[in-house]
Amino acid sequence: MAPSSSRPTSHLLPLLPTLLVSVLLASAAGGNWSGNELPELGGDDGLHREILRDETVLRLAELGKISDGEGYLERTFLSPASIRATAVIISWMKDAGLTTWVDQMGNIHGRFEPANSTKEALLIGSHMDTVIDAGIYDGSLGIICAISALKVLKVTGKLQRLTRPVEVIAFSDEEGVRFQTTFLGSAAVAGTLPESILQVSDKSGTTVQDVLKMNSFEATATAISQTRYNPESVGSYVEVHIEQGPVLEALRYPLGVVKGIAGQTRLKVIVDGSQGHAGTVPMKLRRDPMVAAAELVVTLERLCKEPNKLLAYDEECSCFTEESLAGLVCTVGELLTWPSASNVIPGQVNFTVDIRAMDDKVRETIVTSFSRLVLQRCDDRLVDCRVEHKHSAPATPCDPELTSQLKRAARSTVSAMPGRAAAAETAVLMSGAGHDAMAMAKLTKVGMVFVRCRGGVSHSPEESVMDDDVWAAGLALVNFIEQAAAPEPPVVADEQDAAAVAEL
Amino acid sequence: MAPSSSRPTSHLLPLLPTLLVSVLLASAAGGNWSGNELPELGGDDGLHREILRDETVLRLAELGKISDGEGYLERTFLSPASIRATAVIISWMKDAGLTTWVDQMGNIHGRFEPANSTKEALLIGSHMDTVIDAGIYDGSLGIICAISALKVLKVTGKLQRLTRPVEVIAFSDEEGVRFQTTFLGSAAVAGTLPESILQVSDKSGTTVQDVLKMNSFEATATAISQTRYNPESVGSYVEVHIEQGPVLEALRYPLGVVKGIAGQTRLKVIVDGSQGHAGTVPMKLRRDPMVAAAELVVTLERLCKEPNKLLAYDEECSCFTEESLAGLVCTVGELLTWPSASNVIPGQVNFTVDIRAMDDKVRETIVTSFSRLVLQRCDDRLVDCRVEHKHSAPATPCDPELTSQLKRAARSTVSAMPGRAAAAETAVLMSGAGHDAMAMAKLTKVGMVFVRCRGGVSHSPEESVMDDDVWAAGLALVNFIEQAAAPEPPVVADEQDAAAVAEL
Repeated sequence: MAPSSSRPTSHLLPLLPTLLVSVLLASAAGGNWSGNELPELGGDDGLHREILRDETVLRLAELGKISDGEGYLERTFLSPASIRATAVIISWMKDAGLTTWVDQMGNIHGRFEPANSTKEALLIGSHMDTVIDAGIYDGSLGIICAISALKVLKVTGKLQRLTRPVEVIAFSDEEGVRFQTTFLGSAAVAGTLPESILQVSDKSGTTVQDVLKMNSFEATATAISQTRYNPESVGSYVEVHIEQGPVLEALRYPLGVVKGIAGQTRLKVIVDGSQGHAGTVPMKLRRDPMVAAAELVVTLERLCKEPNKLLAYDEECSCFTEESLAGLVCTVGELLTWPSASNVIPGQVNFTVDIRAMDDKVRETIVTSFSRLVLQRCDDRLVDCRVEHKHSAPATPCDPELTSQLKRAARSTVSAMPGRAAAAETAVLMSGAGHDAMAMAKLTKVGMVFVRCRGGVSHSPEESVMDDDVWAAGLALVNFIEQAAAPEPPVVADEQDAAAVAEL
Repeated sequence: MAPSSSRPTSHLLPLLPTLLVSVLLASAAGGNWSGNELPELGGDDGLHREILRDETVLRLAELGKISDGEGYLERTFLSPASIRATAVIISWMKDAGLTTWVDQMGNIHGRFEPANSTKEALLIGSHMDTVIDAGIYDGSLGIICAISALKVLKVTGKLQRLTRPVEVIAFSDEEGVRFQTTFLGSAAVAGTLPESILQVSDKSGTTVQDVLKMNSFEATATAISQTRYNPESVGSYVEVHIEQGPVLEALRYPLGVVKGIAGQTRLKVIVDGSQGHAGTVPMKLRRDPMVAAAELVVTLERLCKEPNKLLAYDEECSCFTEESLAGLVCTVGELLTWPSASNVIPGQVNFTVDIRAMDDKVRETIVTSFSRLVLQRCDDRLVDCRVEHKHSAPATPCDPELTSQLKRAARSTVSAMPGRAAAAETAVLMSGAGHDAMAMAKLTKVGMVFVRCRGGVSHSPEESVMDDDVWAAGLALVNFIEQAAAPEPPVVADEQDAAAVAEL
């Protein structure tokens, strides 16, 4: 974790006159958008460290302890730990002055509604579910930063003056661990969740409908459809998320903005062979699904690393540039053997396949080619294979204007933060990971802010974000909300000041 | 299942005089070892079909329904289903006139002790545990056939006249599914189970000691050592088991005897890599244990099929003959991924390896070579691998004299069975599967009878043995016990009859 500094501004701008520092910091941290009063610092220095850093970090740790696993973090759709986490998140939303409710897919909403507002709402969210053996930042960071940002607006008296509804949403499922299908929460809000989802089962045979009922939700198609937001009532969706990649760390910059999210395909490959005794069936007579599956796992890797070597004549495209190959990733994350005993040749092996690319044509070519290779290799081995398509999403572009606003907010924040000598250009990244913003893009314009993490590691207990970067993310949200939901554009003292603010 | 015949002898020997048929069948089915009385037929035709076939088949089905799994058979060491099965097996042993007890490792014993006998005991057994998704014959057949054979001796009044103690043992663990280590039951009786076994854990973290205590056993090293039989008190161990291979079916012969059991090595390979997000870590920067493990699974298969292509210079031996390659089998039955989610590059993958060969030198060469290849391939992929040796047993020869006696008993039985035109030579096989006889060979002389099964399939719900073959196995045991534990050698009417009997 980064060392804390008790007087951070002294490092930043030691030579500027005090008044100008105050104006600049207010623009960065709280905004001086009400022209007829002095800038509010809302804390010791206007950067609201107690809320945006210290309390946010404590809450991340607290939420990270709410787990279904013992000794590791696991919180899947409507699991017992998710229900406990819901109560905690609601209490934090209330503490930020928001009106709260839980919708029929378990999403938690915390909203500020200005009196007599007819404007479209600004939604800010991320997901509360986790992978198995997760880190504490993935998803939770976006929820808690948003709550903290609104709490800062509340304690500084600015919340009540917002002219546009602002709402934080903690989505109930993004990772898709439990039901092997992503975005149960955000797709419901976006109105794209099909009715058939109610019948999808987890490994224990429990359906989405069962688990909704067990938790006293209505669990009907009508209830799900009512979770949908009217697109006309929503202006935009913004999400803060850890980068989960190594770029910002390499750039030595805490925040980045996202120009788009990679497309993704999830497959399940099922290989059926002949179950038998490990000691008595000669190698030549085996129809072993384990070796067949292993061969396919190796083939998938090779296809992603060197597609041109494995493509069939009619699959060849000129889409495999150096850039597209850099963004193309293929993963087998789960492989199950049945009956799974050391002295039994398995009867069935199945495994998951996750293929992502920035370029949809690249991804589709890999999916087609891999499906063909599966059938070909299985034919050679006399085992029966099938490929099930579980999920497919095209690459999602973020809204350019929203991204530009977020970029400005990020840049002014980073400039104002302690320990930064000058404001470097905020990086614009592609996201290899899927996010709720992908689902929300079906409803409204989306934008995302990425937060630097150590070593690019995520989906792992090793996931780590510096406390000061958590702080920067919250402060960037405060700045952005004020820009997006303030009553009037900021009025500055003179043109020189306006130029200085714009520069930030 | 084979069609039944209400008058089986009419198919067998239609042209022989009735008296000779009776003598021959008695020799085959019940034995005429008491010289001063007429042969006892003990049923409609001396073949005891009601007990040895019909009741045995019913009991196999009954035991096959006692499962920890729903819709499939799974009964592991001291599981709830094992405890239920224990009560049932004890009731069958009592029904056969045996004195019963359960020892401190959960093995079930049913013994007949002749008055004032000082002779060494004949032990007959097999295992009551199963693999996951098992067939109903593996293990259970040997237990139930032995109980049925003794029941025949009881109902014909011969049990009380045996001069040697005869004992049926249902061993509590042979498959080693729960604790990944085989022969918990028979190794305890043979006195080779190490004290350290008490601390071995199953997947849930429960140790052998825990599970023993939960079931009210003493669970101490002393208690385990007291389970051991004194080698001087035991004369031999005999086991009936399904073949689990295709040889007897190909020979169209119901029974075979075993000259030896293949040596076996069980390894666990643990591959540690870098856990991470499936969408954000470029292919080139991955340390993916899944792909590394898959490559090793494929390598193991190739090593077993074409060892000479992968052996290092110093591993080359002249031991890989065509025969040794036919008997060499390598299996990965279980592979586990952690954390096992489709969108996470696993942090750890581990898998089991089972290597068997008739020739110990062949097996040891493969184990050495595979261990070297694991480290080499893992080095190439920058993942960390280790190979744990879980179990190793050399090939076990069966006792030639015992095997010869079993062969004679099998041959005379098959000749006497309905539907056999003439007595072909009983096949002598090697066993690719491990059996309790392997562990018991440390205590005493061992012999085994194999029973034909459909398609050579075992460790699968498809496992199937014809009812008439079950019958033949029981009858062969009756014959063998009478030979081995009778007061005197049979006295026959004259030399011609003796020759006829000997010919059978």
